[in-house]
Amino acid sequence: MAAPIALIQGASRGLGFQFCKHILKNKNPSTVIATCRNPDAAAELLGLAGQHPDRLTIVKLDVNKEEDIREAAERVKKNFGRLDLMVNSSALLHPSGKGETSLRDVSAQGIISTLTTNTVGPLVMAKYFAPLLQKGIGAFGRQPSEKAKQHSGIIVNITAKVGSIGDNGLGGWYSYRMSKAALNMATRNLSIELGRSRPKVVCVSLHPGTVDTDLSRPYHKNVPKERLFSTEHSVGCLMSIIEMLDFDKTGKAYNWDGAELPW
Amino acid sequence: MAAPIALIQGASRGLGFQFCKHILKNKNPSTVIATCRNPDAAAELLGLAGQHPDRLTIVKLDVNKEEDIREAAERVKKNFGRLDLMVNSSALLHPSGKGETSLRDVSAQGIISTLTTNTVGPLVMAKYFAPLLQKGIGAFGRQPSEKAKQHSGIIVNITAKVGSIGDNGLGGWYSYRMSKAALNMATRNLSIELGRSRPKVVCVSLHPGTVDTDLSRPYHKNVPKERLFSTEHSVGCLMSIIEMLDFDKTGKAYNWDGAELPW
Repeated sequence: MAAPIALIQGASRGLGFQFCKHILKNKNPSTVIATCRNPDAAAELLGLAGQHPDRLTIVKLDVNKEEDIREAAERVKKNFGRLDLMVNSSALLHPSGKGETSLRDVSAQGIISTLTTNTVGPLVMAKYFAPLLQKGIGAFGRQPSEKAKQHSGIIVNITAKVGSIGDNGLGGWYSYRMSKAALNMATRNLSIELGRSRPKVVCVSLHPGTVDTDLSRPYHKNVPKERLFSTEHSVGCLMSIIEMLDFDKTGKAYNWDGAELPW
Repeated sequence: MAAPIALIQGASRGLGFQFCKHILKNKNPSTVIATCRNPDAAAELLGLAGQHPDRLTIVKLDVNKEEDIREAAERVKKNFGRLDLMVNSSALLHPSGKGETSLRDVSAQGIISTLTTNTVGPLVMAKYFAPLLQKGIGAFGRQPSEKAKQHSGIIVNITAKVGSIGDNGLGGWYSYRMSKAALNMATRNLSIELGRSRPKVVCVSLHPGTVDTDLSRPYHKNVPKERLFSTEHSVGCLMSIIEMLDFDKTGKAYNWDGAELPW
């Protein structure tokens, strides 16, 4: 059987980088395609590629540029021919680095930038990579015996619990919350379109918990230690969920512990 | 008692225009501020202003331009000093005029344009007009006897049932669906921020039903006649809901018949 192939978008650091490490370590054989905006500056990722020269390929891709995404998809198609898993990981809280605490902090340009990276990027990734996921061998997740329900690939959009409209009791972080709510709609829409035909592509949103990354670090003051996850711990939880995914679970948002999240 | 003041954003046609007509006809005395991108081309609205020269004021405002919104808010503050109701009405299905039927039709620029008008615009409107709504006299909606729960103003964001993630069973229309899901998050966030302090501003999303407007006209083929509303009928339903709103109903999305919509 051919080796599983995963593409991790936003792989230079944080969760994306950890997904690459985790898959290379725990799923062998496997091939990982790591995309990031500026590979030359991605020291850790370059180091990882040095350790796994035959298994890890770095592809330059700015998720804000449709042309970059289209070209990257062509390159992956030519070199690999298919994908079994795609994880959309890159996100920003706000261009300023600080989520809005009130309406005063809201600006049109801030929201648009956040939506472009966090929401539009993942959907345009799906546009160009879905055909490769439809050619996947379904090497991630669980395959039911019923052929009509088997999947060829999985799309994971990293969402956030603060992107749940129903769960929102605190307010604030306008741009980030709105970007993740819209991303959840994209996940849902993708699950419908890519679940209609055979082979099916499973599409889910996953919440990684409160993770110690550059994005969230300024906000850890009040997080109890046992709820602040390392990227290793979070990605371990998320990969456990991914390996349990099947078509019955498509089109939903899940917490790091596997619980379904409200929209 | 001072006359109620309503601001209708996107008032040159469709639902927005009808809101102006409805309030002028059914709520007298009242003052209506009608905003639109290009007043010179808004023949119907100019006609209505001719009929109600003392009650209807037209303000030029492009919801895609933060500076326009800021300037309009300053003008309204200077001339009127407060608002009791703001309705964000303008929206587009997609810059092409056609909702995406599949991923092939998705483009980064198309999504961004749709999000900018449908989602960012209403939130930036709230940023600049919320202080005026906090000075309102609560002339729309119902006031409970308990003073702490009384509201000074109401923000209505026109949403769409297809913007409900949980209700989405058909897919397609990526840009429009995502823009309305993100708008619902904005509504929710606004309801929290503007519900914390006194005076409170009630914020809701309202679904107008399937209405015979330029936006939806190409999609009416399969809509049964009794479910295709005139703008008059739809706005009549929505104004009935608005006049029943109080702080207990804030932060939610409602159907034209008053039923709560899932996120």
